[in-house]
Amino acid sequence: MQVKLADSYGFCFGVKRAIKIAEENPSSHTIGPLIHNPKEIDRLWNNYKVDVVEDIDRLQPSERAIVRTHGIEKEKLQSLKDKNLDVIDATCPYVTKPQEIVASMSAEGYDIVIFGDIQHPEVKGVMSYATTMVHVVMTCEELESVRLREKIAIVSQTTKREEDFLKIVDYLVGRYKEVRVFNTICNATFDNQSAAKKLAGEVDVMLIIGGKNSSNTKQLYEICRQNCPDSYLIEGAEDIKSEWFSGKKLCGITAGASTPDWIVQDVISSVSRI
Amino acid sequence: MQVKLADSYGFCFGVKRAIKIAEENPSSHTIGPLIHNPKEIDRLWNNYKVDVVEDIDRLQPSERAIVRTHGIEKEKLQSLKDKNLDVIDATCPYVTKPQEIVASMSAEGYDIVIFGDIQHPEVKGVMSYATTMVHVVMTCEELESVRLREKIAIVSQTTKREEDFLKIVDYLVGRYKEVRVFNTICNATFDNQSAAKKLAGEVDVMLIIGGKNSSNTKQLYEICRQNCPDSYLIEGAEDIKSEWFSGKKLCGITAGASTPDWIVQDVISSVSRI
Repeated sequence: MQVKLADSYGFCFGVKRAIKIAEENPSSHTIGPLIHNPKEIDRLWNNYKVDVVEDIDRLQPSERAIVRTHGIEKEKLQSLKDKNLDVIDATCPYVTKPQEIVASMSAEGYDIVIFGDIQHPEVKGVMSYATTMVHVVMTCEELESVRLREKIAIVSQTTKREEDFLKIVDYLVGRYKEVRVFNTICNATFDNQSAAKKLAGEVDVMLIIGGKNSSNTKQLYEICRQNCPDSYLIEGAEDIKSEWFSGKKLCGITAGASTPDWIVQDVISSVSRI
Repeated sequence: MQVKLADSYGFCFGVKRAIKIAEENPSSHTIGPLIHNPKEIDRLWNNYKVDVVEDIDRLQPSERAIVRTHGIEKEKLQSLKDKNLDVIDATCPYVTKPQEIVASMSAEGYDIVIFGDIQHPEVKGVMSYATTMVHVVMTCEELESVRLREKIAIVSQTTKREEDFLKIVDYLVGRYKEVRVFNTICNATFDNQSAAKKLAGEVDVMLIIGGKNSSNTKQLYEICRQNCPDSYLIEGAEDIKSEWFSGKKLCGITAGASTPDWIVQDVISSVSRI
């Protein structure tokens, strides 16, 4: 079976970078899981003795603590340093950016609006850098009862959709004198989606590799299915069924954002042998 | 006949202010007409000896020159001062604002986008304050071939529609890292329109006072006609026909943005006597 990989798939730049940092720092502790993929967490433990710690009080001075791509709250970062831990910052540069923007805009006296999910660790981290009023919202309606100052700065959670961000921007521009808009959306998720859509239209059968409960993988699967009826969601090479390929020539492959490349390579080898 | 005046009509704040400045400075010269209404220009000449000068070289040192609501180019203002004229600035504060914004944003290294008509005197004035790249556009398409820096500041011509301004804002936010949006739109025109619409729905007959060639007056007339079939566009009390009022009880009155209040008062008196 001939195989074609999507132009963009799997880990984004920030996650790849964080995994590399973990590999380069054996026996360190990540503050929360680096990625929502148990196989990859196991690999980091087995090969590099990198484990996951949720409670930082369990760490001893001079131990290495890795801050994951989402970043953490300013105060939490400070408490890691106060405990004399060796802090290694794997915060994605695309997340550091809104943290820095919020800090400097607050210092200049701007009220802050963050478009995103207040429960998301990335957003919790970003909002912790505000020293002025900060509002985290998902819809314009949430701003209706709020009275902000005339000068507003707005950033977005990196994984949000631009069209939804623009709704909030338009709402603010219509009501306030100055709105300083920082488009902090990262296109990685959407790059995977558009590459999957393109590839699904070119192949006879399509494999989407990722957790069956991962929402971004399910989204990829839906997009593929609309463009290639013979699309299959698999967690790894073990899920492949040879009957899927009878009478087919070209198999497209993509992977969700939490799927490590070694699982993808594994699937490529298996399919190539069919 | 009972008369009801629209909640908002006629001159905007900036024009009222400029007329008052002219009245307080008799024998001065306005650089271009203060308002597109020949009757009002005549009144200022007859009562205050204020005339209109297009060519500033005609003015002698120490003569009083009035800058009109639209403002003028920075260099032209400087040349008035260089000629030792007594410069009286009647630039509308709502226009001074974007001039100041453009100057300070340029000084901070932002590229400037102005949403507006490059032929309009207000826009010519505002853009003259830019020291960095400045683009005056009416549509997103005009920005397609342009490559701006990552930091952009945008202002609007004061009389533009917000929904059109937001189209340009959204276009820029989708493509550039930082867009600093200053909503410099003045709602005066739209206030007159919404007040006219409201009033037209309440009365038996509606009079719209303004120049028959004034585009904003014609727009007011159209809005009124849709809400009150018996709407009439008049230039002054002399155009009123008594048959319009037979069987009617309440007459609504509004006026275009270039209609001085004394013409409105004149119409009110005439209608009240019917």
